[in-house]
Amino acid sequence: MIKCVINRVRYERKHQFLFSLQKLQSTVDMVLACSTGLMLLSSRGAAGYKYNPTWPYGQRTASETQGSNETYCGVEVVFVYFEVNSRYTMWLPLHTVCLRGQTACRRSFVGALLKLSGHRDHANVCHLSHSAGLSAQTCKALLYRKHGDPCQVVQLEDVTLPSIGAKDVLVKMLAAPINPSDINMIQGTYAILPDLPAVGGNEGVAQVIEVGSQVKFLKTGDWVIPRDAGLGTWRTEAVLAEDDLIAVPNDISLLSAATLGVNPCTAFRMLSDFEDLKPGDSVIQNAANSGVGQAVIQIAAARGINTINVIRDRPEFTQLCERLKVIGASHVIKEETLRRPEIKELFKTCPKPKLALNGVGGKSATELLRHLKVGGSMVTYGGMAKQPVTVPVSALIFKDVKVRGFWVTQWKRDHSHDGTAFRTMLDELCSLIQQGKLTAPVCAQVGFQDYNRALESALQPFTSAKQVLIM
Amino acid sequence: MIKCVINRVRYERKHQFLFSLQKLQSTVDMVLACSTGLMLLSSRGAAGYKYNPTWPYGQRTASETQGSNETYCGVEVVFVYFEVNSRYTMWLPLHTVCLRGQTACRRSFVGALLKLSGHRDHANVCHLSHSAGLSAQTCKALLYRKHGDPCQVVQLEDVTLPSIGAKDVLVKMLAAPINPSDINMIQGTYAILPDLPAVGGNEGVAQVIEVGSQVKFLKTGDWVIPRDAGLGTWRTEAVLAEDDLIAVPNDISLLSAATLGVNPCTAFRMLSDFEDLKPGDSVIQNAANSGVGQAVIQIAAARGINTINVIRDRPEFTQLCERLKVIGASHVIKEETLRRPEIKELFKTCPKPKLALNGVGGKSATELLRHLKVGGSMVTYGGMAKQPVTVPVSALIFKDVKVRGFWVTQWKRDHSHDGTAFRTMLDELCSLIQQGKLTAPVCAQVGFQDYNRALESALQPFTSAKQVLIM
Repeated sequence: MIKCVINRVRYERKHQFLFSLQKLQSTVDMVLACSTGLMLLSSRGAAGYKYNPTWPYGQRTASETQGSNETYCGVEVVFVYFEVNSRYTMWLPLHTVCLRGQTACRRSFVGALLKLSGHRDHANVCHLSHSAGLSAQTCKALLYRKHGDPCQVVQLEDVTLPSIGAKDVLVKMLAAPINPSDINMIQGTYAILPDLPAVGGNEGVAQVIEVGSQVKFLKTGDWVIPRDAGLGTWRTEAVLAEDDLIAVPNDISLLSAATLGVNPCTAFRMLSDFEDLKPGDSVIQNAANSGVGQAVIQIAAARGINTINVIRDRPEFTQLCERLKVIGASHVIKEETLRRPEIKELFKTCPKPKLALNGVGGKSATELLRHLKVGGSMVTYGGMAKQPVTVPVSALIFKDVKVRGFWVTQWKRDHSHDGTAFRTMLDELCSLIQQGKLTAPVCAQVGFQDYNRALESALQPFTSAKQVLIM
Repeated sequence: MIKCVINRVRYERKHQFLFSLQKLQSTVDMVLACSTGLMLLSSRGAAGYKYNPTWPYGQRTASETQGSNETYCGVEVVFVYFEVNSRYTMWLPLHTVCLRGQTACRRSFVGALLKLSGHRDHANVCHLSHSAGLSAQTCKALLYRKHGDPCQVVQLEDVTLPSIGAKDVLVKMLAAPINPSDINMIQGTYAILPDLPAVGGNEGVAQVIEVGSQVKFLKTGDWVIPRDAGLGTWRTEAVLAEDDLIAVPNDISLLSAATLGVNPCTAFRMLSDFEDLKPGDSVIQNAANSGVGQAVIQIAAARGINTINVIRDRPEFTQLCERLKVIGASHVIKEETLRRPEIKELFKTCPKPKLALNGVGGKSATELLRHLKVGGSMVTYGGMAKQPVTVPVSALIFKDVKVRGFWVTQWKRDHSHDGTAFRTMLDELCSLIQQGKLTAPVCAQVGFQDYNRALESALQPFTSAKQVLIM
């Protein structure tokens, strides 16, 4: 027997809880109806609720709520106190949506929900008993409540863990890197920004601790990485939908697994999707020492593709040059060299690149373009110089260069319904890792509690080591 | 009976007459052998001889002659005086190639030529009698002997017409426009530059006056346009290879035919090859009043595609706006409007464009990009502002915009072996013209003798009329 008590909290940011009827109907996975006539919906699995799992009730981006203000207004967050068989007790976060002034619509909606609810009674009970069996109801997480300097705004806090739904898993985070995009998200300058407060981090490896009753592919002990950005990986534990995770082999190094989902995937796709590269062909890239750059060098080397690697001049240029050559770089040159006549010498032995990979922008990108083969592509995946890409008109018209961009997050979303694409790529990458052909970038492992030191290091220019938080 | 007298003229720019044995052997179409042991070759139709038909003996670009200096040296231009049946007399420009110090090679070459000559005796005689029947042995042409200000360097001169080879046609030019690329070629700033002296003009319509004995598809009276750039169309007559021409219907207006080969083809391909545009989709373009711009408006309108047309502000903005709407423009806006909030109003009724067409560059191009739909393409075909295209890194990465270029000359060359592609496009364009859906841009017709006035007008900013020379 389930007993529930409803406690309502008016949520101030009204627009965050307005959503379209259609979306809700297709995504509701737990429904309760009570005598007040309010509808209670689990937010888990709702399509619009993926961006920020920090806020356990789910949140939506501003753009997704646009246009819905006329349709729905007056939203309350509802906490429901459950008592199952007088033994397991817990608060569950649920939503109530009051459809004021939309009577006709409300009635059909209520009908649909009650019907759904009837079908799922058993599942809900299972689900509750599972959740109630969880010993730890909170975890530690690196939260930020406003955008700004990461060292100022990120704080270690206790965060309540939601219950484990039937299709959810409880995971323990093992390691999570600090990527430039994580920093930009906290600074508020990134393309996708979770609503605040949010947990930092978009990448990392976790171990499955407990699985919901309807979890199909994951089991306790598996290593998993996020399928998409926005999960908030800088935390000790998390309850996540199985669908949001993908398994990786646990015989690869922790650092390889923790840094697998973003940079090597970016490198892999850029080397695969823009030009038909054959052994002996060339690729030119700037930011060659970045995480993406190092993965490009290694994946290209494994495919027999030459890489011309451009790095900024620095005191330890020679050592860095050697290190990149050890992992497979064909050529390592300073940015200035691109503008000098001696670059012609290089192209006497190495074919002109079909593909240029740009993580910098500004003049550096223009220099890459100058050396591109007729009809080649330049793919931009980053803009460290904070300068736009400037393309001479003649290069476009007479050299037929193609200027493109790549964002691995978008690729993952575009392929989220294609069960095999991401899996195939990860299998290939993990195979390279297992063969020793793809190593993690140079990493500095930092204890989770010392996150501030890691953030400070990540913000330094010329950082040659990726900061990885170890939980 | 053919009687011939040989007159040699040493040509100073030796490299222009050096060519590879292989190329000659495959392209020779008239051969005479005489007692001196010199080989006389018609230059017509030689592969390397396409760029500048001004110099009737054919010329080659510097890049094509590289590497041949060791093989052949000592080149003379030979004029042969022919007298056929004591009745027709004429000077024909022929070449003599003295293969000094290459005895073995020379012998096999002589053998090959004599064999060829034997096979073609009859054809040559026909051909000669045909040529001899031609009343005009010279034509008028607008030549430039050095790069610079078109008004300074272009001069009307008499140019000798070569003989009509078996696969050649004699045409009378009817009309030829002055395009921006023609101006840039004369200024020496274009991507392809013929050797000098050269005849200006790359586009125009001509009528076939006489055909060689092996001409297959063209007949006297046909209207033809060039298949490729570089023919030198600013002239009264020309002898051209049949393969360099393509027929167009002669029931379309002279101006439509004269301006068909470059701008409407550019517009057609850009609307066809970059995005899958369906009725109701939108295209945004700057330079909307240019020849390409007007063709884009009309072809798009015929396909049910909306066009958002950006033009620079000018005193007669209202009239121009009306004129573009009459030919099918959905929206006509000033460049400044792109930066103003009122542009949002436009996008309430018109979908965001999938395709942006850029003939300007600089800020104008960046503004087009800002309004492009996620995943859309910007295609650059011109750079009137003489500023590069600047692309924000975020547009490439997060908006997945594709920045491309298009050059119709390259398209024609890439499809020169595909017999149907160009033909299909011209048929579609001519069908639109015949239906009244595609009109020539506003043209100012100028008599050929008044070329200087036409050049001056073409060099003015804000020129709203295309200058077309009428021969």
